[in-house]
Amino acid sequence: MTASNSPLIIFQPSGRQGRVQTGITLLDAARQLGVDVDSVCGGRQTCGKCKVIVERGEFAKYGIQSAEAHVTPASADESDYFRRHPSKLSTGGRLSCVACITDDVVITVPPESQQRKQVIGKNAGTRPIEIDPILHQYYVEVEPHALGERRGDWERLQEALAREWHLQHLTIDITALRQLTNALKAGKHKVTVTVHGEENQEPRTKSQEPIPNPQSLIPNHTSGRVLDVRGGFHEGLYGLAIDVGSTTIAAHLIDLTTGETLATEAAMNPQVSFGEDLMSRVSYVMMNGNDGLRKLTESVIGTLNTLIEKAAKRAKIAVNEIYEAVIVGNTVMHALLLGIDPTELGAAPFTLSTHAPIDVKASELGLRLHPAANVHLPALEAGHVGSDNLGVLIAEAPERQDAMTLLIDIGTNAEIVLGNRNGLWSCSSPTGPAFEGGQISHGQRAAPGAIERVRINYATGEPRFKVIGKDEWSDALPDADIGATGICGSGIIEVVAELFRAGLLRSDGRFIENLELKIENGKLEESNPQSSIPNPRSYMRWHGPKAEYVLATAAQSATGKDIVITQDDVRNIQLAKAALHAGCKLLMLGMGVSKVDKIVLAGAFGSYIDPLHAMVLGLIPDCDLATVVAVGNAAGDGARIALLNKTRRAESAQLARDVNYIETAIDPNFQQEFIGAMHLPHMTDPYPTLQALGALPAKSANEPDGRSARRERRRERQEKF
Amino acid sequence: MTASNSPLIIFQPSGRQGRVQTGITLLDAARQLGVDVDSVCGGRQTCGKCKVIVERGEFAKYGIQSAEAHVTPASADESDYFRRHPSKLSTGGRLSCVACITDDVVITVPPESQQRKQVIGKNAGTRPIEIDPILHQYYVEVEPHALGERRGDWERLQEALAREWHLQHLTIDITALRQLTNALKAGKHKVTVTVHGEENQEPRTKSQEPIPNPQSLIPNHTSGRVLDVRGGFHEGLYGLAIDVGSTTIAAHLIDLTTGETLATEAAMNPQVSFGEDLMSRVSYVMMNGNDGLRKLTESVIGTLNTLIEKAAKRAKIAVNEIYEAVIVGNTVMHALLLGIDPTELGAAPFTLSTHAPIDVKASELGLRLHPAANVHLPALEAGHVGSDNLGVLIAEAPERQDAMTLLIDIGTNAEIVLGNRNGLWSCSSPTGPAFEGGQISHGQRAAPGAIERVRINYATGEPRFKVIGKDEWSDALPDADIGATGICGSGIIEVVAELFRAGLLRSDGRFIENLELKIENGKLEESNPQSSIPNPRSYMRWHGPKAEYVLATAAQSATGKDIVITQDDVRNIQLAKAALHAGCKLLMLGMGVSKVDKIVLAGAFGSYIDPLHAMVLGLIPDCDLATVVAVGNAAGDGARIALLNKTRRAESAQLARDVNYIETAIDPNFQQEFIGAMHLPHMTDPYPTLQALGALPAKSANEPDGRSARRERRRERQEKF
Repeated sequence: MTASNSPLIIFQPSGRQGRVQTGITLLDAARQLGVDVDSVCGGRQTCGKCKVIVERGEFAKYGIQSAEAHVTPASADESDYFRRHPSKLSTGGRLSCVACITDDVVITVPPESQQRKQVIGKNAGTRPIEIDPILHQYYVEVEPHALGERRGDWERLQEALAREWHLQHLTIDITALRQLTNALKAGKHKVTVTVHGEENQEPRTKSQEPIPNPQSLIPNHTSGRVLDVRGGFHEGLYGLAIDVGSTTIAAHLIDLTTGETLATEAAMNPQVSFGEDLMSRVSYVMMNGNDGLRKLTESVIGTLNTLIEKAAKRAKIAVNEIYEAVIVGNTVMHALLLGIDPTELGAAPFTLSTHAPIDVKASELGLRLHPAANVHLPALEAGHVGSDNLGVLIAEAPERQDAMTLLIDIGTNAEIVLGNRNGLWSCSSPTGPAFEGGQISHGQRAAPGAIERVRINYATGEPRFKVIGKDEWSDALPDADIGATGICGSGIIEVVAELFRAGLLRSDGRFIENLELKIENGKLEESNPQSSIPNPRSYMRWHGPKAEYVLATAAQSATGKDIVITQDDVRNIQLAKAALHAGCKLLMLGMGVSKVDKIVLAGAFGSYIDPLHAMVLGLIPDCDLATVVAVGNAAGDGARIALLNKTRRAESAQLARDVNYIETAIDPNFQQEFIGAMHLPHMTDPYPTLQALGALPAKSANEPDGRSARRERRRERQEKF
Repeated sequence: MTASNSPLIIFQPSGRQGRVQTGITLLDAARQLGVDVDSVCGGRQTCGKCKVIVERGEFAKYGIQSAEAHVTPASADESDYFRRHPSKLSTGGRLSCVACITDDVVITVPPESQQRKQVIGKNAGTRPIEIDPILHQYYVEVEPHALGERRGDWERLQEALAREWHLQHLTIDITALRQLTNALKAGKHKVTVTVHGEENQEPRTKSQEPIPNPQSLIPNHTSGRVLDVRGGFHEGLYGLAIDVGSTTIAAHLIDLTTGETLATEAAMNPQVSFGEDLMSRVSYVMMNGNDGLRKLTESVIGTLNTLIEKAAKRAKIAVNEIYEAVIVGNTVMHALLLGIDPTELGAAPFTLSTHAPIDVKASELGLRLHPAANVHLPALEAGHVGSDNLGVLIAEAPERQDAMTLLIDIGTNAEIVLGNRNGLWSCSSPTGPAFEGGQISHGQRAAPGAIERVRINYATGEPRFKVIGKDEWSDALPDADIGATGICGSGIIEVVAELFRAGLLRSDGRFIENLELKIENGKLEESNPQSSIPNPRSYMRWHGPKAEYVLATAAQSATGKDIVITQDDVRNIQLAKAALHAGCKLLMLGMGVSKVDKIVLAGAFGSYIDPLHAMVLGLIPDCDLATVVAVGNAAGDGARIALLNKTRRAESAQLARDVNYIETAIDPNFQQEFIGAMHLPHMTDPYPTLQALGALPAKSANEPDGRSARRERRRERQEKF
């Protein structure tokens, strides 16, 4: 076989093939054929990103019979590179930037050498992320300054970046300008440059050969900004994805070249000490003016700086290698982070300072990253639907799907989005703090000791439960070992749903009156003529008209007191779930659908609640239970995607504008839907899924008869509920 | 006379006239006819900028006979405006934004109502500046936020700025975003917005009527940036022009709407304590690394902040109304101000970090202005020709002139530019500190007590002099009242030139040996066979081979010691003036001219030296003395122009690139020219101007005869001078 002037080259795994000119580098051949091969150092045999495998053997199907590798032998420099980087060594491994083609050859591009790598999300609902961040590092050689020449260091660096990387119209940050002269000295005119900015479409290519098709290969890198210049070849490009919640702040430190999450740190939002919920923090600013605003802003910035330091330390990187942060949060967190007065968000018409995404220097917010680092805050959807919700949309991409998807992120306010590729509707529902354990007699946040799971014996009315921090359920532990401290959100939902299923609660949320286990004159009196529970023990108590259910006895609790669910607790859960359900219904009305195909529960709370119990409660509308998924911190995932993929980031700004919004606070339908949704699971809406499962109590046990209905109305008048 | 449908309107003083539609406002009429009338509030009868005078009387030459003012009567609002602003009241005065034309009329636009006002420079050489700064304030009314509407405050502000002022593609600084919500509240949706950015050509117009010719009238305001938003109508737009010299820092606080300089503050450059001259400061950084650099930067920033505070206090304005600063300085001051390591400027090839103009946020430099204020540093010309020199070019505009102009800015380094509209050449000459009193036995900086003027009686050799702080010359004061402390630059130049003119110095810079007024054995021995001075008294002394001239006696000095000029002092002045002259000659060679038409002396020193004496010394080349002008701090004037006129600022970046540069440190001709220029006034160059004036000593008295020439050579060998 004789060497051809236009040998055939086949790239694996893409299968792309074509004839190229003898003697060109494998990297150039890849580019000519549109095969994605990375390269950072630009053929200086320094970065190793362009490593490919030259396959040997017979490739009959391609018509290649030779067992020889038809590429030029490795130079001393290339061999030296592999000696210095033994981890890169592999059979047939070559640096494609210097190995040149001599005849027909088959080349495999290993995944790590692809520029457009993908990283898989940690959570179920999350799609793979194509790694294409808004910033990149480039290794370039700058011409030395000739005596009498009229170009400064920056002018010559620009020339080098244009010549080697086709970067045009760059600006330079003062930080990088300050580094420049000594970086050039230290690197003997070779420097690693970090550039932030818009780069279009095509892969970053370092041109050594004339570009065959400038239109398609030259990246249109406009308005890029040089953030950093370091002498010599330097790798280290990190970013942060941060979710500032009302209660918890979580920061993920991410390698922007691999997509890998190197560290995750979380802390309580210190603003909690100024007000538990959003509106109390807004009130704090209203009462204390600029000084109050400054305190709230400084507290969150201070916590972020602590998290950043911890994360960098854990990942063993320098804080000044973090060049970008994407921060999501609800609209009040967003305002307080930026130092914007949130007062307008406290009352209609709930005016935002801006809906647009914001890019601001980290240093201007007081965040200690690289001194030229950028902070990106994705767009806000509406007065009460913030960038945390947009993060959920970025991660879940309902706008690309056919399934009519309902996304619910439950917090003090629940942000809800419904839709598919035909359109999206969003709203915020004032669920209040009940789902977080607030306004519940023995409610508490999810923490060790909190009751998180509840099951009731429908025959006896007896509860069993699981507390956070114990693997066993309460009935498998001695009472003294349980140490229940209270009930957290998921436990509250389950206990109410279980009480309803057990027939102890009526669909209107009242405890079954006939099951009056009264303690009168110190004597327990049991009577249960109508309940399906034949022989209940003393799990229910009445104090006058007020009932309560004893979930954990004094012996089982860490406090030495019973942990109970009161009628008021049930009412508060009803109010919260009705608000959520009404929000969902408004969106369904907006979209014109009566059923959803899929329910996505976002947020930590969503991961803990049991979909069946949530549905029994009527917290979510009817849906095939198999398509109810919890995706965890989707807001944080969205931030991570916006950090790693500039296209999705850019799309998200449009997405925020495209989402239709219903202001629940003023929508006349909201109150009506709210009232209907007070019932368990709903006054009028059928739940065929639950009925098919037999998960609802028998109708007879729950429907009040005529007499009790009259009593009901009488009591209602008395209590003015 | 009946009202016409298209009445004639004549604007004074421009004389522009035309027919317009009845009923349009005088402001719209002005715009249709291209007459420059200012307006800030956009027809809200708030700013008063658009006031015009409606003339009454017969204007036969225009064909207007009526004595009536053909405009609509003033509304209650307009009358109210003039009641509240009595200073604006004048006969016929009307707000052109509301007064509408009813018939033919003559209108005078007073100077203060022209948008493109001009301000006259303080110094002789400075041209009028057209006031057209890079930032403007706009008064707009923003739509209130409707419930359920999807636009935030910023979106609605953008809409208002686009609608009322045709501003497009704006961005907003985080500072302004923080102000926005409360400014809208305070101003009841009317706000004053400060916008920084590129605006093209046409005057700012608020459109109330459809724009007749969008191409010519809509300002192409791209990439403008909102820096500030305040509730209601607010005037206050200030800037700083700062000249950071090696020795002195001067800051001028300027009203950007009137061009008026409201305050000027100056202070010593505190870096002096780290090194008197530039190279010693560069050395300080070399020796002390980043820590040294930080100290130098912080010291100058600290001083600037003090000057800014003082200036604002003096002008009675708030520091946060200062939105822009233009700072010029030599290349080392420029680097140290920005925190850039200047080490490369200490040795060939004298590499700059960048030649380009720099815009950086004041806060990033630590300057306390408005938090969103911008600092503009004009371009640098070359390694040793900084933005201070560009400032001189901005102010003097030699590139617009026919006259072959030599611009000299004397400092420790002299920056010299030569040229006219056909081209410009620049260089930097290492004059050393002699002109500032350094390396001179009794040299000192210009300060009270310093001898600044010297005259020698050519008949007797007797000096008389003037010290700073006294109005009389020394011969008009009792000795005890003189209190001379030393000699400053201008005094040094004059005394050396006078010694030469008196025949006491030879053209090679040596004291006339024959005039040996020796004090030997305590006895004064006078002999003066060859000098033109018949009977000199004891003004000259010889200590062995070293001579000195007594300028002020012990009785006249504040120190109780004689103030003398030594042979070494003369040598140092010769070295300095030779360097300067050689620089001028190199540029003349570069331009290919043998004579200059005009010499402009810039800088404080240039204002104090006497052109005649400077020429006698050979410090400047021959030129008609009438065209030698001192323009004072032209660098500072240039900064002021770049602050007030964005077009000139933009031109200056190109100007810096267009100036040719000669690196004196490596130019082979420099040494040769330097040697020739050591002579007074020059070894070979004729000075016809001085000869015509008889300002040079008689040839015979100065040319060494054969014998003394031999002795000269012998001594030269001995001294290895």
